[in-house]
Amino acid sequence: MTKPLLQIALDSTDLAAAVAIASEVAGFVDVIEIGTILAFAEGMSAVSTLRRRHPEHIIVCDMKTTDGGAILARMAFEAGADWITVSAAAHIATVTACKKVADEFDGEIQIELYGHWTEQDAQSWIALGIRQAIYHRSRDAELAGVSWTPEDISRMRALSAMGFEVSITGGIVPQDIHLFKGITAKTFIAGRALAGEQGKVTAEALRQQINQYW
Amino acid sequence: MTKPLLQIALDSTDLAAAVAIASEVAGFVDVIEIGTILAFAEGMSAVSTLRRRHPEHIIVCDMKTTDGGAILARMAFEAGADWITVSAAAHIATVTACKKVADEFDGEIQIELYGHWTEQDAQSWIALGIRQAIYHRSRDAELAGVSWTPEDISRMRALSAMGFEVSITGGIVPQDIHLFKGITAKTFIAGRALAGEQGKVTAEALRQQINQYW
Repeated sequence: MTKPLLQIALDSTDLAAAVAIASEVAGFVDVIEIGTILAFAEGMSAVSTLRRRHPEHIIVCDMKTTDGGAILARMAFEAGADWITVSAAAHIATVTACKKVADEFDGEIQIELYGHWTEQDAQSWIALGIRQAIYHRSRDAELAGVSWTPEDISRMRALSAMGFEVSITGGIVPQDIHLFKGITAKTFIAGRALAGEQGKVTAEALRQQINQYW
Repeated sequence: MTKPLLQIALDSTDLAAAVAIASEVAGFVDVIEIGTILAFAEGMSAVSTLRRRHPEHIIVCDMKTTDGGAILARMAFEAGADWITVSAAAHIATVTACKKVADEFDGEIQIELYGHWTEQDAQSWIALGIRQAIYHRSRDAELAGVSWTPEDISRMRALSAMGFEVSITGGIVPQDIHLFKGITAKTFIAGRALAGEQGKVTAEALRQQINQYW
């Protein structure tokens, strides 16, 4: 099992702020995500700007693509994304369209696990050759105080057993990392926790926990 | 039952093209939608530009909001949207956050019915005071040749009976309008069908059918 990566989610509503945070954290993260908020605020220029400034990082565009897959995927990959996210609620035709464009760019699709997705859905994503899924507490659920549950962990284990690399997000803190032991974790995604004064210290604490369990 | 409105979905990848189409069709549509593709391509400036150019139209920002509801909703309403879309796959905490912001702006939330949504979900949206839902064939499903089914119609009727005003989209053509008779239809949404040389003729044909059935 390869070691999970660290991913910063940039969810600023303006590009200047996002660029500043990315510069601050680039030295200690592997993956830079243009969050949905940033992408909707500034458009694809957010992706191309961060691609240009961080040519060695993996760049993700978190579009939560739900429809219009071919066009949205092409926009993001042309702007320089390596990975894009697709909503678990998207029609399988949309997921297929995104995967096809991703293949053309040597990019990858990450399924964002929102809504009532089923094991059958997950099997259909695997059948398309998709290997990444993102499991999270909703930002709003997190704000509402909903924590990681045994059901969360067991669903992640099931996805991992099916062949998915699982990215995990939603208020990730170093003391939670042990919960995900044994799961093929692709990245741990954090936003505010990796930005700001304590960012580097938090990143080190996350890496130390990752090294202990993977 | 009020008469269904006509809505143009602007899904260009650049704002200049969208602005040109909007100018062309503004005289014969009621609602102008900044589609997900346009919003991701150009950011919220697409919303503010179209708001400024069309002060009398209803402006919708089709974000298919799935998470980060409060921030996304505020961005869109501040840019001048009257309505925003929220994915049926969003956590109820996200839907609640969007509704709260919408109320602050006298705006409305439209639930985009993607994924395995349930009647219980629909009840919870109604309980929040949400009255609009969008039912469609997925753009990609449409491209794959999947047509309106009796199940589509019966689900729309059920939503209508629950108190939803249903917007209907996905390759809408005048000869399909009769299928939706008896449903509380808020808007019929079309993109390419209303743009281009035949746009005005198509709009007239749609209105004629609407007048016949509502």
